[in-house]
Amino acid sequence: MLRFLTAGESHGKALVVILDGVPSGLPLKEDFINYQLARRQKGYGRGGRMKIEQDKVEILSGVRAGKTIGSPISLKIENKDWANWQKIMDVAQDDISQGKIVHHPRPGHTDLPGGIKYDQHDLRNILERSSARETAARVATSSIARRLLDEFEIEIIGHVINLGGICISSKRLPLNEIEKISEESELRCIDKKVEAQMIEKIDLAKKNGDSLGGIFEIIVEGLPVGLGSHVQWDKKLDGRLAQSLMSIQAIKGVEIGMGFDTANHFGSQVHDEIFYDKKRERYFRKQNNAGGLEGGITNGEPLVIRAAMKPLSTLYRPLKSVNIITHETYEATIERTDITAVPAAAVIGENCVAFTLADAFLEKFGGDSLKEIHRNYEGYLKQVSEY
Amino acid sequence: MLRFLTAGESHGKALVVILDGVPSGLPLKEDFINYQLARRQKGYGRGGRMKIEQDKVEILSGVRAGKTIGSPISLKIENKDWANWQKIMDVAQDDISQGKIVHHPRPGHTDLPGGIKYDQHDLRNILERSSARETAARVATSSIARRLLDEFEIEIIGHVINLGGICISSKRLPLNEIEKISEESELRCIDKKVEAQMIEKIDLAKKNGDSLGGIFEIIVEGLPVGLGSHVQWDKKLDGRLAQSLMSIQAIKGVEIGMGFDTANHFGSQVHDEIFYDKKRERYFRKQNNAGGLEGGITNGEPLVIRAAMKPLSTLYRPLKSVNIITHETYEATIERTDITAVPAAAVIGENCVAFTLADAFLEKFGGDSLKEIHRNYEGYLKQVSEY
Amino acid sequence: MLRFLTAGESHGKALVVILDGVPSGLPLKEDFINYQLARRQKGYGRGGRMKIEQDKVEILSGVRAGKTIGSPISLKIENKDWANWQKIMDVAQDDISQGKIVHHPRPGHTDLPGGIKYDQHDLRNILERSSARETAARVATSSIARRLLDEFEIEIIGHVINLGGICISSKRLPLNEIEKISEESELRCIDKKVEAQMIEKIDLAKKNGDSLGGIFEIIVEGLPVGLGSHVQWDKKLDGRLAQSLMSIQAIKGVEIGMGFDTANHFGSQVHDEIFYDKKRERYFRKQNNAGGLEGGITNGEPLVIRAAMKPLSTLYRPLKSVNIITHETYEATIERTDITAVPAAAVIGENCVAFTLADAFLEKFGGDSLKEIHRNYEGYLKQVSEY
Amino acid sequence: MLRFLTAGESHGKALVVILDGVPSGLPLKEDFINYQLARRQKGYGRGGRMKIEQDKVEILSGVRAGKTIGSPISLKIENKDWANWQKIMDVAQDDISQGKIVHHPRPGHTDLPGGIKYDQHDLRNILERSSARETAARVATSSIARRLLDEFEIEIIGHVINLGGICISSKRLPLNEIEKISEESELRCIDKKVEAQMIEKIDLAKKNGDSLGGIFEIIVEGLPVGLGSHVQWDKKLDGRLAQSLMSIQAIKGVEIGMGFDTANHFGSQVHDEIFYDKKRERYFRKQNNAGGLEGGITNGEPLVIRAAMKPLSTLYRPLKSVNIITHETYEATIERTDITAVPAAAVIGENCVAFTLADAFLEKFGGDSLKEIHRNYEGYLKQVSEY
Repeated sequence: MLRFLTAGESHGKALVVILDGVPSGLPLKEDFINYQLARRQKGYGRGGRMKIEQDKVEILSGVRAGKTIGSPISLKIENKDWANWQKIMDVAQDDISQGKIVHHPRPGHTDLPGGIKYDQHDLRNILERSSARETAARVATSSIARRLLDEFEIEIIGHVINLGGICISSKRLPLNEIEKISEESELRCIDKKVEAQMIEKIDLAKKNGDSLGGIFEIIVEGLPVGLGSHVQWDKKLDGRLAQSLMSIQAIKGVEIGMGFDTANHFGSQVHDEIFYDKKRERYFRKQNNAGGLEGGITNGEPLVIRAAMKPLSTLYRPLKSVNIITHETYEATIERTDITAVPAAAVIGENCVAFTLADAFLEKFGGDSLKEIHRNYEGYLKQVSEY
Repeated sequence: MLRFLTAGESHGKALVVILDGVPSGLPLKEDFINYQLARRQKGYGRGGRMKIEQDKVEILSGVRAGKTIGSPISLKIENKDWANWQKIMDVAQDDISQGKIVHHPRPGHTDLPGGIKYDQHDLRNILERSSARETAARVATSSIARRLLDEFEIEIIGHVINLGGICISSKRLPLNEIEKISEESELRCIDKKVEAQMIEKIDLAKKNGDSLGGIFEIIVEGLPVGLGSHVQWDKKLDGRLAQSLMSIQAIKGVEIGMGFDTANHFGSQVHDEIFYDKKRERYFRKQNNAGGLEGGITNGEPLVIRAAMKPLSTLYRPLKSVNIITHETYEATIERTDITAVPAAAVIGENCVAFTLADAFLEKFGGDSLKEIHRNYEGYLKQVSEY
Repeated sequence: MLRFLTAGESHGKALVVILDGVPSGLPLKEDFINYQLARRQKGYGRGGRMKIEQDKVEILSGVRAGKTIGSPISLKIENKDWANWQKIMDVAQDDISQGKIVHHPRPGHTDLPGGIKYDQHDLRNILERSSARETAARVATSSIARRLLDEFEIEIIGHVINLGGICISSKRLPLNEIEKISEESELRCIDKKVEAQMIEKIDLAKKNGDSLGGIFEIIVEGLPVGLGSHVQWDKKLDGRLAQSLMSIQAIKGVEIGMGFDTANHFGSQVHDEIFYDKKRERYFRKQNNAGGLEGGITNGEPLVIRAAMKPLSTLYRPLKSVNIITHETYEATIERTDITAVPAAAVIGENCVAFTLADAFLEKFGGDSLKEIHRNYEGYLKQVSEY
Repeated sequence: MLRFLTAGESHGKALVVILDGVPSGLPLKEDFINYQLARRQKGYGRGGRMKIEQDKVEILSGVRAGKTIGSPISLKIENKDWANWQKIMDVAQDDISQGKIVHHPRPGHTDLPGGIKYDQHDLRNILERSSARETAARVATSSIARRLLDEFEIEIIGHVINLGGICISSKRLPLNEIEKISEESELRCIDKKVEAQMIEKIDLAKKNGDSLGGIFEIIVEGLPVGLGSHVQWDKKLDGRLAQSLMSIQAIKGVEIGMGFDTANHFGSQVHDEIFYDKKRERYFRKQNNAGGLEGGITNGEPLVIRAAMKPLSTLYRPLKSVNIITHETYEATIERTDITAVPAAAVIGENCVAFTLADAFLEKFGGDSLKEIHRNYEGYLKQVSEY
């Protein structure tokens, strides 16, 4: 079982992660994690903070001489901005000047429900933790899970298919091309023409002090048949993946394979017929509307999962809100924000999906060392090829 | 913490449920559960089995003299069809005649990935458990959670908004009207004209030996602000609800509030401004694009969540598959099936959502007896009104 | 992950169990479970109820043609006495005659704290579930875990080492002898002379209307090195075993290996020196004070764990208590009870230990079918022999 | 639900903790945690390392202006010795000189089973994590749980009742006296004369290059009736406390109340009769052999729990072991160690018990802010007084 906890406020000292359950013997470098963190910070339409932060992880435990040792892995990512917030965010000090207290909940954020739930009248005590800054911690921890999947030649890529209503066509490319093009794109978009339109839309939103959301798609190739299970509701991999993605800040929808569009077709158009390739000794499908999952179990086809991100909730253009002390209406103005973060969300999504898959992978293959897992895995692959 | 396990094969003796964590003092009758089970069995386009089953639950423990006593509640739902399957499904017997062994995995079902994972060569050993028959057990257990929410005047209703591509308009009705109309509709559809078109589509599908999916929407009113939490990924209520719905058989997409469509709008069009009603001492919104959840916490507006169901995977019209012993191509024909089950899925969805909400409710309000929970809840509501 | 829930009141219709996570392909018969249930019911000093019950399990799901299929296994054990309690324990009826309501909490039972916690004024609503009758359900579910360990030649035996203060000497016998003698003994005692003294003590207690407790020891042989883990507190196998045993009704102490007596010796007398047997390619110890566990991990030596059971709380000789309605002092008299149940507790302990070990076993070896687990296990054993 | 993960190697950069589930509004200072850490480091018979470390915690998140804010709390405790180990413990470097590799597993430690399980041939990769240094992290995290219990006037104290076989008499003192005397004692012993004998024994062990264990007792006063539950095995508080203590390094036994000695008495001598105090409106007992727990639920009497610690496994006097590369016998000599750490273990035990109790407390009383929990708690206390 792979499990983690994250901690850290957006303008606190640091983000902290503990990841428990990683087997021993996995090669792991800070650079690998930093690479995923850097991917999370890119994208046309990001504001100034991305430049301030340039996240670097520090591995505090669980890794020695370049390899995991089976112990929990703890990570720290310093908040570079901390120097400017030290007084406001101090752990012990209680003389925060009144002017710095946040009394105006922002629509679309959890400021108000969080303030009510936790009985906090300085909404900073909520927004510091609900901030999407936390996704840096989730990417860091999940990237280790991804490192594990790498060892078994499981490849994951996310790309943006809709930004502010501008969509790519549904034509499929091979995974390595998607990877290559999206990595080079400022918007993780695999269609240059569409990307140009997306940029225009972002520029328009920026001019209007507005923000944009979008949809990203994650594709995973190389998964074995048999991750997840149909036997109990909370073991179904589709449900676990949905939780993983829907719990990312600003995500409002998740779909697998043909997703919502299955509602519009006959069964005979949707279900993927089964064939057998005698040479490669494996079952296969000619189409993949199921998105690689049937009954909550991977079926050997690529996993395809999409998530919808709402536009960022922090706008230059003010939205009406209420002062929680006076209950008077108020129009918030803000100083710095991004216009859109869908490309970043695609990277976060990739890593979150990696985490859930690695968890299901270890559940199935057990083992405490990479060597043991490899042996178990190869034994299973052989068994599968004989089925 | 509310938790449950279900067990039972589709043609086995019975479905069994244990639900742990229900407080004492909750009035509970078998009739209430049976009512939810009956709602699950209705709907135009269902096949013959629904008539065979007429599910009746038997409460085996946890309830005495009409009230829960704090002990785990166990339920049994007999499979009425069992008499005809006794020999095939026998626990001990091993002389199942070869003719009855299932070697042909059905596309869209988990027969093949399940067979490979669990190393089973009679696919009945997979399909009996992966069958949507299991949702009867989930409805039964979840209906008890729903009973709990009733006590706190939290109301839940599900209705069908798309069946095979035929959609209702997005005009909103009050919850009690939605409830009234959908309960009377053969398809849980609140628009009579659209319903007629849906029925036509079902008839067409039936004629062609095909099946249909659709989309249902669940609305929950009366929820307090503050269920779920932003502090850790797995406490976010949006993620937990997504898992709950996506793990239902045949569900391929989940969205909350404006959902996927948020991707197509500017932030200023999406985020729900905040207002304060001084008379009723509460914050409110004029629109509810967030669907009642911000940052994984309920915000006091109605919860609105939708799920897409793929067409049923069992068709009269045969799909190509492969015999798992010979690896030869095969076209399956079947004898009995439903054309669509979206209305039933809406009922299952209602109850699954109820379970997740009740779990979050008990987490927040603690308590071992209904009396204690009421006291805690009312204290909190007063605190909220003073915020 | 192996998990289970039990349900059922002592005089309700039935005990029910759902066990989730058992791999497919495990041979399993009702008889095997019944055999463990029968072992639980034996022992000199038991009262009349043991004769009434003669527990028989009914497997309701998860097993077909004599083998598990990977689905959750559900079990039902009917309460034979139910016929006489039907009216008092009715699920729906609320006309329980006042005379049958329990207002007198029994010292040593959880009647009073349970009644207060769950706000119940008929203490039957507590005592029905807290009753040691529940251990039949735990034995039934755990015996399936034990069945799994059997396949890997892991043997478990429990015997009574102290009954009411009468102790056996600490001289060790080989496991098969302990098994043989204890199975034939009315008190699971491996020393005939001591057993005679124990029986005398039981007769004395009976004469005085009193009850007796004792200590049992569980020994497990054939465990591989490497179950459990040192990396996180809740993965340590010693802690998990302690929870497993301490949560059995009436258990007040648990110790591993030399246990409490380690406090009285120098380190040089306690720690088991390490040797290597070149022929058998394995490390070994000449003594086993650690009881097979170092740092929460099995070390290849036999697991030795003991638990202390307090005397039964229901006595013929009345203890003072208070009527919860009037708050007046009261002296309870009862009609039927056992004098001691330590031999039964040893059987319960065996099975609970088996459950925890099987859970750790599956964690380490993964796998969904017995075939896969065997392959993983043998690969690991080879790896161990090369260390 | 309160949960935590710890991370960190004994000679790595730091120990790290994340604690999730602490309500908002709890006053918390680093000093409070440091005070518990300092108590953990005291005690006659400790070696040099305790002086090197002088643990200081740094709160990295979850606390602002002296109060918790509901977010996860992360803590870092630097290893002062790290400077000297930097090269050996480097995360990335792989040129650890051969001379520094550990090939000799120490008896009584988990070096050998851990090395085999995780397939590590430098046993430092095991011993760094299995080291009792980890208990500093557990004390830090648990001390926050303890801080929460403080708010509800629940008091916890641990003291040493047996050190190397030298025992105090069983005469009871009031809790505040036990606290006062044990805090001033070098060995947390409440009997000066016995303490002097214990010191003699430690000096003797030191002279012989040997080590000593012992037994400590934890007493908790002020607990409400009703923590834990009888309804399901893993909710029983006795089992959870046993896991908590048994999972501490070097603990080999746990007992509650009269514990193992209940085996030697008649039931009539063991069970605590129930009385009612009309003035104070509460039930009470004149004796407390149950140690405050009946059926896994607190009964309002003080919780009394004891644990046995084996002698430290690292001795000056060498024990026989085997080189894991050559399989040749070897006699380890070591340079620095403690003679005994039972007083420290008592402090660790106190805090671990506090954690488990706080977890059960929050389960019962729910709530997200200290204010809400106080309201729920007081409502319940009133309900209890009316029972």
